[in-house]
Amino acid sequence: MAMEDKPAAPTSEGQQSIRCKAAVCRKPGEPLIIEEIFVAPPMPHEARIRIICTSLCHSDIIFWKMQEPPAIFPRILGHEAIGVVESVGEGVTEVTKGDIVIPIFMADCEECIDCKSTKSNLCSKFPFDVKPWMLRYDTTRFTNLNGEIINHFIFVSSFSEYTVVDTANLLKIDPAIPPNRACLLSCGVSTGVGAAWKTANVELGSTVAIFGLGCIGLAVAEGARLCGATRIIGVDIKPEKFEIAKKFGVTDFVNPGELENKSVSQVIIEMTGGGADYCFECVGMASLVHEAYASCRKGWGKTIMLGVDKPGSKLSINSTDVLFQGKTLMGSIFGGLKPKSDVPILFKRYMDKELNLDDFVTHEVEFKDINKAFDLLTKGECLRSVIWMDK
Amino acid sequence: MAMEDKPAAPTSEGQQSIRCKAAVCRKPGEPLIIEEIFVAPPMPHEARIRIICTSLCHSDIIFWKMQEPPAIFPRILGHEAIGVVESVGEGVTEVTKGDIVIPIFMADCEECIDCKSTKSNLCSKFPFDVKPWMLRYDTTRFTNLNGEIINHFIFVSSFSEYTVVDTANLLKIDPAIPPNRACLLSCGVSTGVGAAWKTANVELGSTVAIFGLGCIGLAVAEGARLCGATRIIGVDIKPEKFEIAKKFGVTDFVNPGELENKSVSQVIIEMTGGGADYCFECVGMASLVHEAYASCRKGWGKTIMLGVDKPGSKLSINSTDVLFQGKTLMGSIFGGLKPKSDVPILFKRYMDKELNLDDFVTHEVEFKDINKAFDLLTKGECLRSVIWMDK
Repeated sequence: MAMEDKPAAPTSEGQQSIRCKAAVCRKPGEPLIIEEIFVAPPMPHEARIRIICTSLCHSDIIFWKMQEPPAIFPRILGHEAIGVVESVGEGVTEVTKGDIVIPIFMADCEECIDCKSTKSNLCSKFPFDVKPWMLRYDTTRFTNLNGEIINHFIFVSSFSEYTVVDTANLLKIDPAIPPNRACLLSCGVSTGVGAAWKTANVELGSTVAIFGLGCIGLAVAEGARLCGATRIIGVDIKPEKFEIAKKFGVTDFVNPGELENKSVSQVIIEMTGGGADYCFECVGMASLVHEAYASCRKGWGKTIMLGVDKPGSKLSINSTDVLFQGKTLMGSIFGGLKPKSDVPILFKRYMDKELNLDDFVTHEVEFKDINKAFDLLTKGECLRSVIWMDK
Repeated sequence: MAMEDKPAAPTSEGQQSIRCKAAVCRKPGEPLIIEEIFVAPPMPHEARIRIICTSLCHSDIIFWKMQEPPAIFPRILGHEAIGVVESVGEGVTEVTKGDIVIPIFMADCEECIDCKSTKSNLCSKFPFDVKPWMLRYDTTRFTNLNGEIINHFIFVSSFSEYTVVDTANLLKIDPAIPPNRACLLSCGVSTGVGAAWKTANVELGSTVAIFGLGCIGLAVAEGARLCGATRIIGVDIKPEKFEIAKKFGVTDFVNPGELENKSVSQVIIEMTGGGADYCFECVGMASLVHEAYASCRKGWGKTIMLGVDKPGSKLSINSTDVLFQGKTLMGSIFGGLKPKSDVPILFKRYMDKELNLDDFVTHEVEFKDINKAFDLLTKGECLRSVIWMDK
């Protein structure tokens, strides 16, 4: 366990800072540096978590590379993880020491109108934000040994042996779930599966097209498969993705690079006799959203945006297409899932051997090798790399 | 009855052309000319209808003014109407002589995948089109006394004492329904009520904002009221519309012309504590769609486009707004109503004194005065003018 060689480790629970290792991002796009830091005790409504393992998501890469605000440095990235509660802040009753938890960057206060509604997953008490501090206090819990403040990342910062997370961002889970599977439901896999299940509400027997077969796109396929879609068309410029995609239910493959004189939407409309019932954009390019919208079936087709495009990017859609085609355009953040009530259902489906999480984990590395995970993901050579903190 | 003074009127049902009067649009934007025409017998799948009364819809105005294709002249406009079946084409069983019917510009073949689906109202056997001919044959049934071809309008052409309509565009209705109410459900009122009921599925207790309080916008209000919306905010630059809007359930009014340093969406967000649950654009301006989208509630808000903008008009929406705000953008053509199964429900609700149709009819004119109806609507001085053919 990582604590053993740390002389400044706390003795009284939650009252002292913990000295531990974290992978700090100091400059955009440069390798993370494993440094010793102090992790302050949790404040009220917070818990300090020992991270068991964490996985690398494309959003980490985006903020790692980002040069302009909201980029900020030094920062501890990472938001897909599983951990054990080390201590809790004053008055915290939701979790207790020893609980196994996953952090979720989307808060779920369970009290506001959104959290109480079945229709929203956008907590209005604690709106999602990219501010580099804790949810409630606008302060950091990280400093280096010289007292330099280190910034948080979307309320999680899991690339550290210890982190502090607000209880609104924590979900207690069954300790029986393998940690290197559980961490996937913190963000990416939940986002994709949820987009099919909750946002789109994919119906039995329907046809789905997925633009981009990275982890999110494959998770959409997995969600669509679980919802009973009978045809799942994957669109990607890398044909080698088709083999792995089959494991998640993708039945057909379209490579835009191999089409002659036809657009992807023309091909999908031909393949499906009119268009897919549901189209998911999982890359983050406005032009692909347009193509997805064109690919979906008139009368009832839904286009769901999951990919994050550059700030300021605009969708441009013919108003007559919107008016006359009976299509729907939606966005999906965290797959429309309510962190505290929907994610447990995904865990149950994994434990019941229905939800395939295993095939998302293509690599596992030790914490000291975290930059290998960055290499793999930036080169598109992995789905998910799990980073073990105690190995 | 209009037939009495027509020497060339047919004697055997459906076998001869009928000579009657029609209001012909010969030049864009110029007064219609009442001319004598021949109306050919119905072909298989068609019925010839004696129009009882017809009402004037904004779409008639758009095609009346239109100078470029798909504009075509001479043409008989008109598509909101009620009539009695005079004769039927070979093999027609759906309607018979003497049946009271309304034409509906949207076909409902009752056979295709769309017509059989509960999710679509876009018949794929007979897609909506602005071609100036009959639905199945691409030929006209109208000629003038010199044999000149006169064009149809969206499969109805009701500004004529007689017209021919495909059975896919005909709904048989209860003869007890007053004709000057029934005709409203051919298009405009159905479109608005349906947009709230079928497209948006407005929920009990919800908040609705309606951009544009013409006939369509007020019909949306009426539909939202029937669905149990508790707050219905009308947005219009003409404050005099508020009094009549109250009759259709509008509870609050925003005049964009009276706002100082605030956008309509800012005002609606303030009024509603976060935005309306449903926003309807009923004018046909991309900028208003953007404002409607901005006015709807994050997490679950739906924006529904009903207004017809200029061809080529583009919606431009921030992709991050779509992704992160949990909103939905939809279009609604004919209110998402299935002509043959949903419109009868609206008739029933009218007969049960639930649906207010009476207050839409602000003017009634004789056929010879049809141009007065055009004047009233272009000046915005009416909701619906009913034009009686036999007066």
